[in-house]
Amino acid sequence: MTHLEPFALQLAAIAAEVILPLYRADHGLADKGAISGKAFDPVTEADRGAEAAIRKAISQHFPDHGVIGEEYGEDRPDAEFVWVLDPIDGTRAFISGLPLWTTLIGLRRQGEAAIGVIAQPFLKEVFIGGPSGARLLSLGETSGGRPLSVRPCGSLSTALGATTDPYLFRNEDAAAFERLRQKARLIRYGADAYAYAMVAMGKLDFVIETGLKSWDIEAALPLLRAAGGYIGDWSGGAAGGEKGRLLILGDKDRLGEVRGVLES
Amino acid sequence: MTHLEPFALQLAAIAAEVILPLYRADHGLADKGAISGKAFDPVTEADRGAEAAIRKAISQHFPDHGVIGEEYGEDRPDAEFVWVLDPIDGTRAFISGLPLWTTLIGLRRQGEAAIGVIAQPFLKEVFIGGPSGARLLSLGETSGGRPLSVRPCGSLSTALGATTDPYLFRNEDAAAFERLRQKARLIRYGADAYAYAMVAMGKLDFVIETGLKSWDIEAALPLLRAAGGYIGDWSGGAAGGEKGRLLILGDKDRLGEVRGVLES
Repeated sequence: MTHLEPFALQLAAIAAEVILPLYRADHGLADKGAISGKAFDPVTEADRGAEAAIRKAISQHFPDHGVIGEEYGEDRPDAEFVWVLDPIDGTRAFISGLPLWTTLIGLRRQGEAAIGVIAQPFLKEVFIGGPSGARLLSLGETSGGRPLSVRPCGSLSTALGATTDPYLFRNEDAAAFERLRQKARLIRYGADAYAYAMVAMGKLDFVIETGLKSWDIEAALPLLRAAGGYIGDWSGGAAGGEKGRLLILGDKDRLGEVRGVLES
Repeated sequence: MTHLEPFALQLAAIAAEVILPLYRADHGLADKGAISGKAFDPVTEADRGAEAAIRKAISQHFPDHGVIGEEYGEDRPDAEFVWVLDPIDGTRAFISGLPLWTTLIGLRRQGEAAIGVIAQPFLKEVFIGGPSGARLLSLGETSGGRPLSVRPCGSLSTALGATTDPYLFRNEDAAAFERLRQKARLIRYGADAYAYAMVAMGKLDFVIETGLKSWDIEAALPLLRAAGGYIGDWSGGAAGGEKGRLLILGDKDRLGEVRGVLES
């Protein structure tokens, strides 16, 4: 598996070549939400172009690998190795000029998350988790890097957390989030998947989200596990599922306390 | 006045030298909020060290200039030239590892905002507004740069906006913000003063904030004016005041519509 880590890092660089020239440029926006009648969900030429470039590189180097992507759907999803892609997570940050969007690249082996990359190309930061551990590299590097690990957190009352947008929580989820917000020391907004990397780096203590898709989560699993954190749903189960719930904790020992707040 | 623009840019670089080594380091945090009994308001060694370094440079080069800073108070506030400093705006982003904190440096001449710098040293971005116009430079540069200007916005329903934290709006302000949120196309959270620069760059259409201090606002005034935008309070008056209200619009023609929503 470790031989696929440099390739995953190369894929992040390939995506960056497509995306960066379009970041903050006056590019065409298509609005999936307007077409489908669902909530606002912008998607850019950059997102599509980057996913196409990544898919091309995978098919050239590993034609038997499967791919699941936000833009172009599923291709051999039952293969031994399946790449799960979201070229631009945080498209709303992207169109707002805010450099907290990320490129998410996950690799599953036999259905289990094995390698995960969270890259922020404008910052030239690439966070990777896999068999070699959790590391921060510069964009374009395929070896070395700085080891990452979560930090301890003695109590939710001292915890720094993040979520993308508090208005995404509805009904009982909104009530649960409000209890968590009241108990935590601080919650930051607007960071999307970049916040996952900040937990892996030991700068944030938790992230809570809802309504996520598999490609929003897949890359985070190996990164947070390799960095020593908890990643799952709000109750200790697998992240995602029907409600798309995600909870990330730097300190696994806080799971009971956070569950208690969310479920009370 | 234009001879003070390169000096303002130098001050941003001086602050960056102090701040960057402490960003994402395990540095000591003092909590002003805990001492004063007010809301959580972390302040770092970086904030204090950077303000001291900026003050030293000003006193060496322009000993007759006044200084107003968040950390060390007022010094000759009635001088012809007065610098208004916030070395780290967005200390909460800073301690969370999120690179949207900024260094704010404003220069008043005879009480009027004349030069404003918003710098994000980790991104090596320095936004300046003044007699020479609005520009984006790389950290360390003191001339040249890319001209900035706001973009037109035909309607609030197509507008991308930003505010730092929706829970900072209280009572009637919360109701006004909620009306605005419902009318706008999208509101991003967590960007602090970096969002002001995104309006000046034509990437966001508005920013709304409350509870700000003079050093949170001063640097934005020359930048937004030079870029062609509106910057004031929620009603067309001067920004700040007792309530610390700030409204920034890329397209000045939207002021009536936004006022109507906020005041309805």
